[in-house]
Amino acid sequence: MIKAGVIGATGYAGAELVRLLQGHPQAEIVWYGSKSYLDQKYASVYQNMFRLVEDVCRADDLTQLAREADVIFTATPQGYLAGLLNEDILKQAKVVDLSADYRIKDVAVYEQWYQIPHQSPQFLPQAVYGLCEKNREQIRAAGLVANPGCYPTCSFLSIAPLLKAGYIDPATLIIDAKSGTSGAGRGAKTDNLYCEVNENIKAYGVASHRHTPEIEEQLGDVAGESVTINFTPHLVPMNRGILITAYASLREGVTKQQVRAAYEAAYCGERFVRVLEPGVCPQTKWVEGSNFVDVNAVCDPRTGRVIMMGAMDNLVKGAAGQAVQNMNLMFGLPEDMGLSLVPMFP
Amino acid sequence: MIKAGVIGATGYAGAELVRLLQGHPQAEIVWYGSKSYLDQKYASVYQNMFRLVEDVCRADDLTQLAREADVIFTATPQGYLAGLLNEDILKQAKVVDLSADYRIKDVAVYEQWYQIPHQSPQFLPQAVYGLCEKNREQIRAAGLVANPGCYPTCSFLSIAPLLKAGYIDPATLIIDAKSGTSGAGRGAKTDNLYCEVNENIKAYGVASHRHTPEIEEQLGDVAGESVTINFTPHLVPMNRGILITAYASLREGVTKQQVRAAYEAAYCGERFVRVLEPGVCPQTKWVEGSNFVDVNAVCDPRTGRVIMMGAMDNLVKGAAGQAVQNMNLMFGLPEDMGLSLVPMFP
Amino acid sequence: MIKAGVIGATGYAGAELVRLLQGHPQAEIVWYGSKSYLDQKYASVYQNMFRLVEDVCRADDLTQLAREADVIFTATPQGYLAGLLNEDILKQAKVVDLSADYRIKDVAVYEQWYQIPHQSPQFLPQAVYGLCEKNREQIRAAGLVANPGCYPTCSFLSIAPLLKAGYIDPATLIIDAKSGTSGAGRGAKTDNLYCEVNENIKAYGVASHRHTPEIEEQLGDVAGESVTINFTPHLVPMNRGILITAYASLREGVTKQQVRAAYEAAYCGERFVRVLEPGVCPQTKWVEGSNFVDVNAVCDPRTGRVIMMGAMDNLVKGAAGQAVQNMNLMFGLPEDMGLSLVPMFP
Amino acid sequence: MIKAGVIGATGYAGAELVRLLQGHPQAEIVWYGSKSYLDQKYASVYQNMFRLVEDVCRADDLTQLAREADVIFTATPQGYLAGLLNEDILKQAKVVDLSADYRIKDVAVYEQWYQIPHQSPQFLPQAVYGLCEKNREQIRAAGLVANPGCYPTCSFLSIAPLLKAGYIDPATLIIDAKSGTSGAGRGAKTDNLYCEVNENIKAYGVASHRHTPEIEEQLGDVAGESVTINFTPHLVPMNRGILITAYASLREGVTKQQVRAAYEAAYCGERFVRVLEPGVCPQTKWVEGSNFVDVNAVCDPRTGRVIMMGAMDNLVKGAAGQAVQNMNLMFGLPEDMGLSLVPMFP
Repeated sequence: MIKAGVIGATGYAGAELVRLLQGHPQAEIVWYGSKSYLDQKYASVYQNMFRLVEDVCRADDLTQLAREADVIFTATPQGYLAGLLNEDILKQAKVVDLSADYRIKDVAVYEQWYQIPHQSPQFLPQAVYGLCEKNREQIRAAGLVANPGCYPTCSFLSIAPLLKAGYIDPATLIIDAKSGTSGAGRGAKTDNLYCEVNENIKAYGVASHRHTPEIEEQLGDVAGESVTINFTPHLVPMNRGILITAYASLREGVTKQQVRAAYEAAYCGERFVRVLEPGVCPQTKWVEGSNFVDVNAVCDPRTGRVIMMGAMDNLVKGAAGQAVQNMNLMFGLPEDMGLSLVPMFP
Repeated sequence: MIKAGVIGATGYAGAELVRLLQGHPQAEIVWYGSKSYLDQKYASVYQNMFRLVEDVCRADDLTQLAREADVIFTATPQGYLAGLLNEDILKQAKVVDLSADYRIKDVAVYEQWYQIPHQSPQFLPQAVYGLCEKNREQIRAAGLVANPGCYPTCSFLSIAPLLKAGYIDPATLIIDAKSGTSGAGRGAKTDNLYCEVNENIKAYGVASHRHTPEIEEQLGDVAGESVTINFTPHLVPMNRGILITAYASLREGVTKQQVRAAYEAAYCGERFVRVLEPGVCPQTKWVEGSNFVDVNAVCDPRTGRVIMMGAMDNLVKGAAGQAVQNMNLMFGLPEDMGLSLVPMFP
Repeated sequence: MIKAGVIGATGYAGAELVRLLQGHPQAEIVWYGSKSYLDQKYASVYQNMFRLVEDVCRADDLTQLAREADVIFTATPQGYLAGLLNEDILKQAKVVDLSADYRIKDVAVYEQWYQIPHQSPQFLPQAVYGLCEKNREQIRAAGLVANPGCYPTCSFLSIAPLLKAGYIDPATLIIDAKSGTSGAGRGAKTDNLYCEVNENIKAYGVASHRHTPEIEEQLGDVAGESVTINFTPHLVPMNRGILITAYASLREGVTKQQVRAAYEAAYCGERFVRVLEPGVCPQTKWVEGSNFVDVNAVCDPRTGRVIMMGAMDNLVKGAAGQAVQNMNLMFGLPEDMGLSLVPMFP
Repeated sequence: MIKAGVIGATGYAGAELVRLLQGHPQAEIVWYGSKSYLDQKYASVYQNMFRLVEDVCRADDLTQLAREADVIFTATPQGYLAGLLNEDILKQAKVVDLSADYRIKDVAVYEQWYQIPHQSPQFLPQAVYGLCEKNREQIRAAGLVANPGCYPTCSFLSIAPLLKAGYIDPATLIIDAKSGTSGAGRGAKTDNLYCEVNENIKAYGVASHRHTPEIEEQLGDVAGESVTINFTPHLVPMNRGILITAYASLREGVTKQQVRAAYEAAYCGERFVRVLEPGVCPQTKWVEGSNFVDVNAVCDPRTGRVIMMGAMDNLVKGAAGQAVQNMNLMFGLPEDMGLSLVPMFP
């Protein structure tokens, strides 16, 4: 039985980790870390866990936690883990970090977009970007995994097959993303109040969202060249779900059959990426609560562009589910253990 | 492996059965019945099941189904099963009926409230009302189970402990219920359109809702006397969830400690009924996607009344989850097999 | 032109006052009071007012405001106005208080339910409870109006006709109320976050909500005797709207024709109370954005009870709309001036 | 007083016309046309109109209507008006058509995208495309106005200033649109049920939506060259609102100051188009219920693109509000008469 500790267990991503690990046959949580609710019963914060979790919330003592746990999940603000991580911790426990601290290899890029100094860049080389479908083998061997952002996960999986095949021009790539509100976290901010979000949609972080360089780095990897994109996220009045609508110009002569084949080839062995039937557009509700990403593409002969689409549950494949998938790989377990979640509809 | 057939598999309750049985280790669906989508791939109707269900929808041939299946679930309109059921079917397969056809023992009451003649009242005596927490033993031996209505399940479990203990006056009982919209079914009606339901709340079926006699019969059982209630359901802009707020006058001298003790005694061994901590009000979101019913009560010394509250997912404990719980009992399996669903929040 | 000042202009009720006074032909706002957004442009807080309001937010200086304005609206927390009000202010301007400070005549009751000392009980005798349909004449002469709470307004208008007619037994009265989330205000609290409210319903303040004594006092007035009720509010995932479902036993022999006639008699001359056709249940969406209250009642011969229902926009008739209605009366204007708001559907 | 007839008065756009004309000082509705609800009281279909509208629904007799009305609004399915319109009608009444029948000047394009033959192309030359901010003068003289589609209105107003100024390359233009569900109409379709739309987002009509050629034609007009775009609409779980996020490459050397100036110049005299402060993104909630369109743009020096955004209420400026604006122009009234609607928030 893998002993797991969760730092930031009372945020939405942390709480989703708790939900998923409840159903994991080979893992159990031994440490529910939450500074905000220290010494309170976890189930008094998340009443859905009443009778299921009896533990109280503990402090963020990573050193002690590393002694008690086999794996540490950090669902914490940017910069937090980078300020605390050290060799001792990494010797004693594997770490899956759900923050952005070790996602971007170039420290200067990180510091520019996140506007904080990186306090432990020395761990960047050993950190593996935990997008399982891309880096499966490196993750198996990793001690420190940077769990991908929600937007980058869905963007990458929706776009990578065509980029890798050389079918689209990276310079023309535009990603228009839509997210449910749980992605904004559980902090008590006026902007996230029910009455401000409900019956409303807006773009935010236009031309400046911090997931942009992460997406560019990962797409650049498969493109074999530097990729610069427009990425525009929108806040949608729903709890969960991310939908990606991406646009790019097809290279001369690429057919819709080739486009289709590229997706099928990329994901034919993948458990969690579903290439929908031709003509079927992904919907976030179809993946809610599950680790699936549904993708599809439509070619437009009028404009010579392809519209790539992907839908995902931002808290599962976009955060906690992928973290568990990473844990499974790191511990030599079947990659989908504890992740056979059937999407809930309606 | 139990072979299950679902008639009405493309309604919301039927679809939830499909979701739950996907995760059941001892049951598999061999027949997806749907007249509306005959010969279409099930997963083309419910795309959440893409890659998970490969079957096509079949006709409602109960006779043939009884030969192929060990258990038949009927998630069909009122009167449908009563018009088709016969001895042969019951000899070959166990039946769990999610409609109201065999819930009410008194045919005249059924016909008065449902405004249709009952076509097979001869099966009423053998039908067991499938409220597991109440009729567990009879269900184990049953061949035909009448799966309870959503409102009656939540109402009964919220109220029965006090009624059984004789702590409340049945003549003063009022049930004010609130339901998510999935309870209205998947039929294409103007009243259930997004724009009609969203940002809106209304009462409906005031003093006339068909779940009233079902609630009265079940509560009458535990009260040991006939019970006549006011029951007012409301339509709430959310997909899932039922909340019951019930009112009754406490018998002279009953204390809040006694009230608390009655709930704890009634449910101390129950897996799926959670008596919340004193002062904590049930919320539908805390049980979403799970088979739990959360209950609690508040005594009001000013009025001498007790306010009883219960929250439940109408599609799980209120329909498909309870149906699986019944199946488990009928086949001698652990009652909670396949039902270890952790509520999803948010 | 009436010069109006709004203290608490950046709360939801204050913002609704701004919306309504924008369309009022005889009033204009000269003071947008907001401590939280001092010196910021009002339209930068409420961008719906961009181009419509050019003013910046000012301090809560009641003394100065009284010199500049003819009428002061205070949409402030409980106890705030009571701590600041004085004779000078009341000599210079009329005051419509949207808080509870002057609603309850009995100081002890106020202090018990609100758990704060009342700092200016000397103004209670002159304060008029601003439920226009009840106290129209006193309001015309008033200098200080206590604008009613949202739940009390809707409860009173739904129930009063039968209580006044002596048709129901006050001792049996139960009010089950449902409210949209704007009633919880614009404060940044975790409980009011989108993800906590959406897809969720709960009761709150069970047997302890502070609107209880206000409702009891007003109903007691028309009943001619003291009234003690159960009042249970619920939080509903929608922005606006209150729905009241109230239950009481009919006096022996009262017919449904009498019940109907009581409502029609009570409201035949009322502009803002609509008695719906027999059998039609009020829906909050039908009054959204308007000053209407829709009411109706259903008699249940099985139980001898009547179910009384009322729907209202909590920010309009439940707060800002009624405040404007009061202002109109206080200044001798037509009661409905600026209030010809047509409900918005969908 | 202008006598107005509304054909299709019980659809959402028709009902919004009824709401707006209720508040119009110089117009009154004399004919509520609705085949679906013939001879029923209009207010029994839209209970928000109870006490405000006493009329019953009448047939779609355009000939008779033309005799009784000064202006006819047709909020009807595509092809309907084209099949009925004739010279006599146009001689007797002005017509504002909310369908697409006379929006596209090229019959072949219309027939290709709408997949129906055009039955009265002879009226196309005299029909004026009713985008007031673009064709104000022609509308004043028109007898037949083609009221623009919701997406085209919001797209055009968001993009036109930069296209007209020659600041963007039309060949790079991509429009990603998001709409509330009222745009899908009031027809009883499974896809539009509450439970299918709520907690869900999807693209639809990808590379094939019928508003595409309409947008292209209008943008082509101001570009002075043919424009071919990608247009992708999405269905958002909210009642009202359209948000446009459009992307295009800036011409070499165009500065953000020039971009800003282009918007300010285009809309400095416009009552209903609000150019938001720099850095402020439009939100649909800020315009809800009003005739405003909020626009803004962000330049991205990293990619050389500009992101153009616009928000609008699809039922007001996107349908009924613009229709009233057209009527005002056609009858020589102030363009904003009856349209001083303050956006409702929350």
